[in-house]
Amino acid sequence: MTDRRELDRDLDRLLRDSGARVDMVSAREILRGVLASPAAGDDEAWIPLIGPDAGDEVIDALKELNGRIQATLMDDGLSRRTTDPDRLSELRKELKRRDLDVFIVPKADEHQGEFVARRSERLQWLTAFTGSAGTCAVMARKAAIFVDGRYTLQVKKQVSSKQFDAFHAADKSLHTWLSENLSHGMRVGFDPWLITGAERNRLESICTRAGAYLIAQPDNPVDAVWAGQPPQPITPMVAHPTKYAGEASAKKRKRLIDAMNEAGLDSVVLSAPDAIAWLLNIRGQDVPCTPVSLAFAVAHAQGGIELFTDPRKMSPGLEAHFGPEVVVMETEALADELSHLGSRGLKVGVDLIQAPAKIAITLRQTGAEIVDTRDPTLAMKAAKNKTERDGMRNAHLRDGIALANFLCWIEKSAGRGKTTEWDVGLKIDGLREELELHRGPSFQTIAGYGANGAVVHYRASEKSSAKLKKGSLLLVDSGGQFLDGTTDVTRTVAIGKPTQEMKDRYTRVLKGHITLSRAQFPEGTTGSQLDTLARKPLWDIGLDYEHGTGHGVGSYLGVHEGPQGISKRPSQVELEPGMVVSNEPGYYKSGAYGIRIENLVMVKTVKAEKGWEKKLLGFETLTCAPYDLNLIEPKLLSRDDIVWINDYHAWVKKSLEKKLDKTVKAWLAKATKPIKVPRA
Amino acid sequence: MTDRRELDRDLDRLLRDSGARVDMVSAREILRGVLASPAAGDDEAWIPLIGPDAGDEVIDALKELNGRIQATLMDDGLSRRTTDPDRLSELRKELKRRDLDVFIVPKADEHQGEFVARRSERLQWLTAFTGSAGTCAVMARKAAIFVDGRYTLQVKKQVSSKQFDAFHAADKSLHTWLSENLSHGMRVGFDPWLITGAERNRLESICTRAGAYLIAQPDNPVDAVWAGQPPQPITPMVAHPTKYAGEASAKKRKRLIDAMNEAGLDSVVLSAPDAIAWLLNIRGQDVPCTPVSLAFAVAHAQGGIELFTDPRKMSPGLEAHFGPEVVVMETEALADELSHLGSRGLKVGVDLIQAPAKIAITLRQTGAEIVDTRDPTLAMKAAKNKTERDGMRNAHLRDGIALANFLCWIEKSAGRGKTTEWDVGLKIDGLREELELHRGPSFQTIAGYGANGAVVHYRASEKSSAKLKKGSLLLVDSGGQFLDGTTDVTRTVAIGKPTQEMKDRYTRVLKGHITLSRAQFPEGTTGSQLDTLARKPLWDIGLDYEHGTGHGVGSYLGVHEGPQGISKRPSQVELEPGMVVSNEPGYYKSGAYGIRIENLVMVKTVKAEKGWEKKLLGFETLTCAPYDLNLIEPKLLSRDDIVWINDYHAWVKKSLEKKLDKTVKAWLAKATKPIKVPRA
Repeated sequence: MTDRRELDRDLDRLLRDSGARVDMVSAREILRGVLASPAAGDDEAWIPLIGPDAGDEVIDALKELNGRIQATLMDDGLSRRTTDPDRLSELRKELKRRDLDVFIVPKADEHQGEFVARRSERLQWLTAFTGSAGTCAVMARKAAIFVDGRYTLQVKKQVSSKQFDAFHAADKSLHTWLSENLSHGMRVGFDPWLITGAERNRLESICTRAGAYLIAQPDNPVDAVWAGQPPQPITPMVAHPTKYAGEASAKKRKRLIDAMNEAGLDSVVLSAPDAIAWLLNIRGQDVPCTPVSLAFAVAHAQGGIELFTDPRKMSPGLEAHFGPEVVVMETEALADELSHLGSRGLKVGVDLIQAPAKIAITLRQTGAEIVDTRDPTLAMKAAKNKTERDGMRNAHLRDGIALANFLCWIEKSAGRGKTTEWDVGLKIDGLREELELHRGPSFQTIAGYGANGAVVHYRASEKSSAKLKKGSLLLVDSGGQFLDGTTDVTRTVAIGKPTQEMKDRYTRVLKGHITLSRAQFPEGTTGSQLDTLARKPLWDIGLDYEHGTGHGVGSYLGVHEGPQGISKRPSQVELEPGMVVSNEPGYYKSGAYGIRIENLVMVKTVKAEKGWEKKLLGFETLTCAPYDLNLIEPKLLSRDDIVWINDYHAWVKKSLEKKLDKTVKAWLAKATKPIKVPRA
Repeated sequence: MTDRRELDRDLDRLLRDSGARVDMVSAREILRGVLASPAAGDDEAWIPLIGPDAGDEVIDALKELNGRIQATLMDDGLSRRTTDPDRLSELRKELKRRDLDVFIVPKADEHQGEFVARRSERLQWLTAFTGSAGTCAVMARKAAIFVDGRYTLQVKKQVSSKQFDAFHAADKSLHTWLSENLSHGMRVGFDPWLITGAERNRLESICTRAGAYLIAQPDNPVDAVWAGQPPQPITPMVAHPTKYAGEASAKKRKRLIDAMNEAGLDSVVLSAPDAIAWLLNIRGQDVPCTPVSLAFAVAHAQGGIELFTDPRKMSPGLEAHFGPEVVVMETEALADELSHLGSRGLKVGVDLIQAPAKIAITLRQTGAEIVDTRDPTLAMKAAKNKTERDGMRNAHLRDGIALANFLCWIEKSAGRGKTTEWDVGLKIDGLREELELHRGPSFQTIAGYGANGAVVHYRASEKSSAKLKKGSLLLVDSGGQFLDGTTDVTRTVAIGKPTQEMKDRYTRVLKGHITLSRAQFPEGTTGSQLDTLARKPLWDIGLDYEHGTGHGVGSYLGVHEGPQGISKRPSQVELEPGMVVSNEPGYYKSGAYGIRIENLVMVKTVKAEKGWEKKLLGFETLTCAPYDLNLIEPKLLSRDDIVWINDYHAWVKKSLEKKLDKTVKAWLAKATKPIKVPRA
């Protein structure tokens, strides 16, 4: 005891003497916040937040403190791999205390992002389910979890069927389940920070029909019973320099104000951290894989913007980056700000399908006029500017080096029966780490061999990871975050000699992928209009794939972003020059093998030729990695398809060969050998 | 005078003696109603409505009466080809009497059908505009007409710019114009029978924003000043026998009741005459080209249906066809019935984007719960049953005889510089009239030569009709109504030797048309997903066409029907076996020539092959007529495309040759000669 206090006192004095920003108590909280973030593994990420100019002595002392915190940190309970019935019964007691008959626990944080911090893994803590999407509902005598088609098998493995009924949401949704289980007078609780405004409206109409009450909880009942729940993450919020962002934040904010004036809005509430990151040219490490700082913002047509976050995240110099127009406030002050807008009767834009219900509730209660509007930064962010386009190109060329090394390694090492899927993931992630400007993976690598490749969202674990043997296919979907761009690529390779069927299916997937890559289409065309081009070769023989063909990709931001996409789902969003989308058709033979081929492509203007009446758009391919020639059946391809592959492979070879060592260079030369073009 | 009275007295006696259904006064009204319908030209259509068992003497006397009515009929004013300023000023006086500042005159009748009776041609009477879609708004000192892209040229020719400002609705819509011209306190009149519920809601929100009042008129102000306005049409409403309909009305009504119970509706209001015609297995001749009787219907989940129409239209025996479940009432009784539903607080389904605003207004005022629901018969009607499928096939085979004779005639007679577009229309219409079960055109034939072919909705007139000369293309789009089906076909033929460009464009249009014809797609696919297949060969060289690729087609009903279609517009409507759609890509070179190739195709289940994982659908081609071999450039086609054309031509030849005379048979043999298939 004495020891610890003494150390603390020493550190406090050191911090004071060195002119650090915070005292020892605050330093301790910051370190806890860092440990609750993906930066936990980074031994120095937090230094700028505590003592930017600290000398070695201070830093050593801080590291010592950090070590002590880690050693004594209470287990957050998220490593448990099966449902803990005690947690469910603790939650039920809490619900009883609150007089609630039902409580809804979604996999979501306050920002509805794809990745959440550990503090927000309430669904996992309660059920042990680790999938990326799902919801559960708890009543006194029953509880249920609802997942989508990707997770119907996984949910059965992870979640105890004694505690939770598991449903495929397409068969029985939360909404249907509630309709069946609610009765008159019941009280249904929800956390208005974790449920969107649109979802709250749906829940309310279900409750109203049943004569039940929907009640927003002031705090989350799970938090009340989760001992060891991590705090909100704290990681440095840093400026994203214009040399990567391509446009100053002030200019972006001006564009936002123009859009607000056009729509007649006084203010707009932004709740998506990637939107805010884009608008203010900032980045952070609060959640895995997407380099954002969790925050809200309120922008005003009259100028000025408030950023609601934990101000301790501000890295040195960020205030100067922001300038006087951006006011940083505590997250807790958001409610006051919204009330203020309401009391002035202002017209406030809120994206109800994205923003937490709490925002609309507060605005409505205080008298604001709410306009349900898609986040106006979405469309602006989607079309990359010249700098971002160049950055995306460069990031992909670097990514290609890792991919060439990786694919060469696969060919050399696989098929001996020793390499596992887990090794494959480590290898590609490790190769990317060596690349310039690399900032981590853009999502958790998928490496699926054989039947595992047919599980669309398969994640190998270290313990249960298949060995690569001759006779099947390996599917690897991975990507990286770079300061100048974001990558996402899938290659499928034959381990040993593929069957004729594998070649047929691979070539059909490739033909769809190429047809989409080569497509030229008039301005005004949506992604939905192009989706069929990628599926047609599979449809021809009664096959298809059950996922979209392409998603939008951010620039050193989310690897999945809207509003554009390429899918069967009807869409009104037109493709515009500078938008980046993935082109990733696939085929999955259940129990046997999976095929997916994915490039990122960027929408470009096609130079007009004589006689053209329309302005055409097309795609520029960004991803730089060979397809597996062993899997291509040229008979299924047109002459133009083959010419396209040969041109692409020539470009890959030329772009990468100087940056590879001798072995890999030799491999690349072979991997990009032209396919014989049939006579015209 | 004496003569006429005497004749009337004689006829009245004759009718009485012969046991006719009506007296002389009613007979006169019925004859006037017939003269206001497309059956006006048919000398005997009305006989069953007056004296079904009448002898020759009565019939002769009725014909004499009919002749007298025709001779003394006041001109309905619709033959005038330019705007009559007096009509506008008469309407303005009427608006002043009603204290209205604005009145809206749409091209529409009470049923929002594609074709309207002469009585409903209010927009044409007022402005002289004859296009198939448009709206005008009249104020004291200004008036404006709004048309879509098809009619921007036509509106300038027909409508006086002194009286009306003409707008392309895409540039300035009625809604925008109203927003600009309305001021506080203004009174905006509309006819709630001619404006849909959904449109009324939009108008109301525009008025509210401007502080103006939207006021439903008890009767249409145009009717008050239109001397010579024809009455509502009266034509025989006849049973459509099960041998053509394929399913008894009672069974269809049972299906409707099931759908209502599933949706929890007590009643449904049907306002579309083609929906009612399908449901009750009846047909009529109230409007041109679509064989329907104008009517409303209210169906009840408890059983029973009321049909609101002019009971004088009932042909002999129809009551027995209906049976006790169908109660026929005067159209005027509809409002009472709706009030009755309202007073019982029932849940009533209304299609707000189809039904007149009057219906929702009446229901709301009297306390009904309105559920906005798409007309439930739409989807049922769209998927043809076995009898209808066979009927469609047979109707198209007969249609093929007319088409072969027509195309042969074109080849022999055109290019001599004498035949006009008008002659072309008369010829194809005349050839169809000779076919079995034929019941008139399904729309007004489009025959466009040269530059006229590039005007997508061109209609030649007798006086200004281009002569066919060598050196350009003739586009002919026509169709017929048959008791067993409805046809719609477009062929484009070269007059003289076509240029290489014409061949290139024709072949690209054909390639899109073939790709769509050959498409196989999984169950659940929508028409929007297929649209791009038809456009791609044009997109490849910077071209496109500004219309949809396909529309639904009824079975001896509307040549355009929903809900399915093939177009760029996002759609959620899945294609289902038995649905008929057109496949009609085109290319239009402004000022030069137009190309369109149209077949009707029917969605079919494709027999599964080994290894298929999806149930696939495809198209069966119904239309039976050769493409112009002179316009096909085989180099642009794939081997499979050419095989498809040859197979199709072989089927056309085999299906038609025995039914053709020697000359046409010889022509057909040449016109369906196989194209040389390139080696694989």
